[in-house]
Amino acid sequence: MSDALYTHQVQIYYEDTDLSGIVYHANYLKYFERAREHIIGPAELARLWNEQGLGFVVYKAELTFREGARLGDTIEIRTRAHLASPYRAVFDQNVYKPGSQTPMVEGRVEMVCIDPTKKLVPIPVPL
Amino acid sequence: MSDALYTHQVQIYYEDTDLSGIVYHANYLKYFERAREHIIGPAELARLWNEQGLGFVVYKAELTFREGARLGDTIEIRTRAHLASPYRAVFDQNVYKPGSQTPMVEGRVEMVCIDPTKKLVPIPVPL
Amino acid sequence: MSDALYTHQVQIYYEDTDLSGIVYHANYLKYFERAREHIIGPAELARLWNEQGLGFVVYKAELTFREGARLGDTIEIRTRAHLASPYRAVFDQNVYKPGSQTPMVEGRVEMVCIDPTKKLVPIPVPL
Amino acid sequence: MSDALYTHQVQIYYEDTDLSGIVYHANYLKYFERAREHIIGPAELARLWNEQGLGFVVYKAELTFREGARLGDTIEIRTRAHLASPYRAVFDQNVYKPGSQTPMVEGRVEMVCIDPTKKLVPIPVPL
Repeated sequence: MSDALYTHQVQIYYEDTDLSGIVYHANYLKYFERAREHIIGPAELARLWNEQGLGFVVYKAELTFREGARLGDTIEIRTRAHLASPYRAVFDQNVYKPGSQTPMVEGRVEMVCIDPTKKLVPIPVPL
Repeated sequence: MSDALYTHQVQIYYEDTDLSGIVYHANYLKYFERAREHIIGPAELARLWNEQGLGFVVYKAELTFREGARLGDTIEIRTRAHLASPYRAVFDQNVYKPGSQTPMVEGRVEMVCIDPTKKLVPIPVPL
Repeated sequence: MSDALYTHQVQIYYEDTDLSGIVYHANYLKYFERAREHIIGPAELARLWNEQGLGFVVYKAELTFREGARLGDTIEIRTRAHLASPYRAVFDQNVYKPGSQTPMVEGRVEMVCIDPTKKLVPIPVPL
Repeated sequence: MSDALYTHQVQIYYEDTDLSGIVYHANYLKYFERAREHIIGPAELARLWNEQGLGFVVYKAELTFREGARLGDTIEIRTRAHLASPYRAVFDQNVYKPGSQTPMVEGRVEMVCIDPTKKLVPIPVPL
């Protein structure tokens, strides 16, 4: 189990917003995934998929939205990851403005890894 | 508080899937939102926004993913809505294949409504 | 070559808009694709992909945006399809409000079909 | 009129792909927009919108897709911008793998700028 804090920055563009002027809520799941991919490494993720047919699947997601990001904002996804079991990875992922300690969005995502037959396999990367 | 069950069908297209062949997880939040919009009525939602500046905002979302939908699938979003307080609407939203009673995805979304100054207002529609 | 006009209706939701209040431009390519999938048939598309590994790929797309759709709008994608050659399908796809003859968006999408080795194959469905 | 070449890098994530394993075609319009926003500056774009109600609108888009990007790829959006008239900005935007001179996707996007009454205004930034 790791205590490392991973920070991933996301720039907010027109595509991210909806008519209310703030980021459309579903998009935070995308930002969380981008942050997780950088923890594992996009090349390693692609290799696991292409060479071994191993894919990561989100099993659970919980989000609490406190403040919406806006066009022009840069936000930080701060992630802590640990294995809850050999088969289940848990990512605590919160959104902040740079320098702030007040989360805009708080999230927790649980992932599993499956092989080409859809069978659960142990998480194949260190976390 | 209502016991009505609202069913909204979603067709799965190329755009919905990712390289793993199943629907990208964040998209279920979109399907849930479409279903909610049909409960309130897209025209009524637009009227509230355009005439009164009232917007619905997701405050919390929880999802459990059990089985992924695929290209060509039609899925049903079955929703029950109630007011947890005058200010907070709760939507229990599950995804099924038509005719099935086994949920593919289970979700709960809590919403609030804000005025143009971002102040919470009572949910302005019956649920 | 067919003269048939296919009409596909799209409901505009929060997810479709951006902070300017109108539909985000890239989404029209999604609506066009949904309309095309209904011409071929989502089940047939899935069958071609799953059983023969045949996938449709967009080769060219041209769009002219004249008027933006808004939350609560229902829009119609009106499509005419023809084969420019055995290997190339052309879809003229315009967006209208129901009952209108003034296009909001005009588009043309050219598609090819590839096999699992990425080789072009003749378009495997009648158009 | 400028001859400057602007390069913007995009990392390809799960969210970008579809079941065919390559980037979903509509997403390139998003990448092009991100690149354009960095030319103008996200903060400047937000300021024009928030303080003057000026919004950029895509008027035309043309794309030719030659090769699809994949999970784990980093791609470069190389953009040249010029004013075709005081009211119309043209962006030639091509997609490459880093170091390559062979475009994966070629695009041209024409933009106009509108005020809160939807009237065309001269492009308010140097290009």
